[in-house]
Amino acid sequence: MSIWNYVVTAHKPTNVTHSCVGNFTNPHDINLIIAPMTNSAKTSLVCKRSGLIRSIAEPMEKTVYTTKVLRNGNIAKLQAGYLFPEIGRRRSAHMQKYPDANVISLGIGDTTEPIPEVITSAMAQRAQALSTIEGYSGYGAEQGEKVLRAALARTFYGDFGIKDTDIFVSDGAKCDISRLQLVFGSNVTIAVQDPSYPAYVDSSVIVGQTGSFEKDVQKYGKIEYMKCLPENDFFPDLLSVPRTDIIFFCSPNNPTGAAATRKQMKELVAFAKANGSIIIYDSAYAIYMSDDNPKSIYEIPGAREVAIETASFSKYAGFTGVRLGWTVVPDELRFSDGFPVANDFNRIMCTCFNGASNIAQAGGLACLSPEGLKAMYGVVEFYKENTKIIVDTFTSLGFQVYGGRNAPYVWVRFPGRKSWDIFAEILEKAHIVTTPGSGFGPGGEGFIRVSAFGHRENIVEAARRLKSLYK
Amino acid sequence: MSIWNYVVTAHKPTNVTHSCVGNFTNPHDINLIIAPMTNSAKTSLVCKRSGLIRSIAEPMEKTVYTTKVLRNGNIAKLQAGYLFPEIGRRRSAHMQKYPDANVISLGIGDTTEPIPEVITSAMAQRAQALSTIEGYSGYGAEQGEKVLRAALARTFYGDFGIKDTDIFVSDGAKCDISRLQLVFGSNVTIAVQDPSYPAYVDSSVIVGQTGSFEKDVQKYGKIEYMKCLPENDFFPDLLSVPRTDIIFFCSPNNPTGAAATRKQMKELVAFAKANGSIIIYDSAYAIYMSDDNPKSIYEIPGAREVAIETASFSKYAGFTGVRLGWTVVPDELRFSDGFPVANDFNRIMCTCFNGASNIAQAGGLACLSPEGLKAMYGVVEFYKENTKIIVDTFTSLGFQVYGGRNAPYVWVRFPGRKSWDIFAEILEKAHIVTTPGSGFGPGGEGFIRVSAFGHRENIVEAARRLKSLYK
Repeated sequence: MSIWNYVVTAHKPTNVTHSCVGNFTNPHDINLIIAPMTNSAKTSLVCKRSGLIRSIAEPMEKTVYTTKVLRNGNIAKLQAGYLFPEIGRRRSAHMQKYPDANVISLGIGDTTEPIPEVITSAMAQRAQALSTIEGYSGYGAEQGEKVLRAALARTFYGDFGIKDTDIFVSDGAKCDISRLQLVFGSNVTIAVQDPSYPAYVDSSVIVGQTGSFEKDVQKYGKIEYMKCLPENDFFPDLLSVPRTDIIFFCSPNNPTGAAATRKQMKELVAFAKANGSIIIYDSAYAIYMSDDNPKSIYEIPGAREVAIETASFSKYAGFTGVRLGWTVVPDELRFSDGFPVANDFNRIMCTCFNGASNIAQAGGLACLSPEGLKAMYGVVEFYKENTKIIVDTFTSLGFQVYGGRNAPYVWVRFPGRKSWDIFAEILEKAHIVTTPGSGFGPGGEGFIRVSAFGHRENIVEAARRLKSLYK
Repeated sequence: MSIWNYVVTAHKPTNVTHSCVGNFTNPHDINLIIAPMTNSAKTSLVCKRSGLIRSIAEPMEKTVYTTKVLRNGNIAKLQAGYLFPEIGRRRSAHMQKYPDANVISLGIGDTTEPIPEVITSAMAQRAQALSTIEGYSGYGAEQGEKVLRAALARTFYGDFGIKDTDIFVSDGAKCDISRLQLVFGSNVTIAVQDPSYPAYVDSSVIVGQTGSFEKDVQKYGKIEYMKCLPENDFFPDLLSVPRTDIIFFCSPNNPTGAAATRKQMKELVAFAKANGSIIIYDSAYAIYMSDDNPKSIYEIPGAREVAIETASFSKYAGFTGVRLGWTVVPDELRFSDGFPVANDFNRIMCTCFNGASNIAQAGGLACLSPEGLKAMYGVVEFYKENTKIIVDTFTSLGFQVYGGRNAPYVWVRFPGRKSWDIFAEILEKAHIVTTPGSGFGPGGEGFIRVSAFGHRENIVEAARRLKSLYK
């Protein structure tokens, strides 16, 4: 058997070209290399059927140089592109196919409404001031500006014992999740809600905390997936969850929209305390809470000793593109040897990060002024009205509908069907982008997530099309 | 021998309070725990002398709860705080001691001059536009806005075969260095120039590529330190450097200010190619080049197959607080199995990052307009004049002075002396903050780095004080 080197180029129907190089005994094996590149076996098969794969059977030793650096085995474990870019690619492919369609995106959870003027003015002023001697500032504190840290502590944690110095300002919660993974390193064990926001699992794989992906169960080895289904009120049965070092917990949850009650959160904190675990509590959607549930884990007594909280201005004030978030690491939180976790998080923030943009921080501060808060809640209220329209639409069609009351996400069940098939059906027939539930973990299979971020006319039009599709 | 648990609180002279918990057989051992917290044995001794350390000899089992999560051994290897925050702390302590002194900071390398109005206006406009339906934008591409990637490719890499899609826009080069470390993971070996910008070594320790710190040689195990001294023209003797997977190379260099010549860079690229290594080339100061040396590694034929380049608007346009940089990962760069490195970097950018601030990106684009470029070069020219004043000052005092011609850093030798002692002397006697050379690696011992970022009157005043101190 002789091994040949091929240069393989695959044109996807989207005109995106992928090329790669590998050793093959047989041109049919190119599937093996095209599949991870296009991040989907299905796409590669489509390419084959289109006859668009070309293989150039030239020995390539002289053509393509490769270094001797081994690819990182942890990254190689990742199964597909990060979920949301993948949805973006599918959306682009659809728009290519139907150039005249008015595609409505209720997929990625991207804010659409303008940022209130009181907030943008503060950013414009800060930007403009950078051209003056008095207004110029260079490197800021890696932890964020003191005045912003103080305002965050006062606004969101006033009664819960969180100090200004416990708060680290950043360029967003997703980025902080990866930095937290750097703090804990490869030897910790983690648990996640299933389904959950994919950044927890993916960043865990990247830093080497997991085993390989097990295709039969659609899970990575060594991660504890805590099933959250309608059947258990979207709250894990903690009696059956083994101890892990870290517990990622998002409430109100992305994607299910479920918010933990005070009773459930007390259980969670007690569970962590009994096990000596650390909870990373993602409160990115707390501002959308309608029911009387805790908005911060620090409302639960004792949580400062077992919990980190991440949060963000993205969905609070439309800062998805401006980039501003924060993470709370109380100084009461200790490793087993008594060393403060906050010290190591601070070290990571100082070494792997250089502070959030000063202009974005001026915007964050404006958000927390009395006018800013009022304006911010106004936009949130608008999205909550959108949410109600979507909930009512699916409910009127007889679906099992979850979420929506405490989060800008509606979680719709399609019993017996595959999430990606539902995603494809709604995209193909209604030109609406949603998010397939299985992208959030095996517990999301059979669901889709519908985001309420959108202009009102698009939400209303989407509701009309869905009623027409599923009537 | 009985082991007691103590809660120890240390007040530094700066009124910064550090507290920690540990097991001690003897109150004197608190030094061992205070030293890493205050990041300096010297500081802890100061605390002791001031009599401000209090130890509360209560058994703490009931007082302080600790989780059962083990501290990450890699982070525990780090020897001290990240260099620049440490200098900031010493500066604050000095200002506390001499509240009336006019302290001049030539330490951290922080820009001081206003950003040209043509650039801040673009940012202010973008910020203001976010309050309108037409001007609002949410999540941007994680890789940066297409128009900015294209402008960067055109402006800095026009003739070197770098494509728009090879360029990833980010919130800064320091952040990208850590993300690159995540790409390569814990199993690669690295080489660094000695001395060099501390982020390379520290991020390497954090992801687990190194052994422990070896106090006798002031080096971490498993890192190859390539000595760069005046004696070898600040360019490593590559014949004696063993192969590593990754070679960090900064030119013009921080801290020495030395820029590699074309001949040297050809040698470096040939060395990497022969070894199958990947160079991470840090060109953050390329705009300061006066001599006719390459400003990008891609000027060297074949470099696209072996090199990544990081760069930043921080020192180009005073964006240290605005936060904007970029990294070039050419698609020709491959792991040993032929897989493109750019694909994995893209995956990290999409999973651990969420794009640079859209307002900062508008600023970056304005920097690259004809007016923006002209204005940007104007500020750079100003700093270069500062540099000349500093070089002339130390030269006139008879010091061995390096750097300065191609970088905003002047590297001054104090034979037979310790860098931190020189740092302390200049701070104490001239109220000038510099950076101790040994903070950049053992090869920096006996040097200080003097930054040329400063208002002109401060540079002139610093020159006067230095002449008075060392006359």
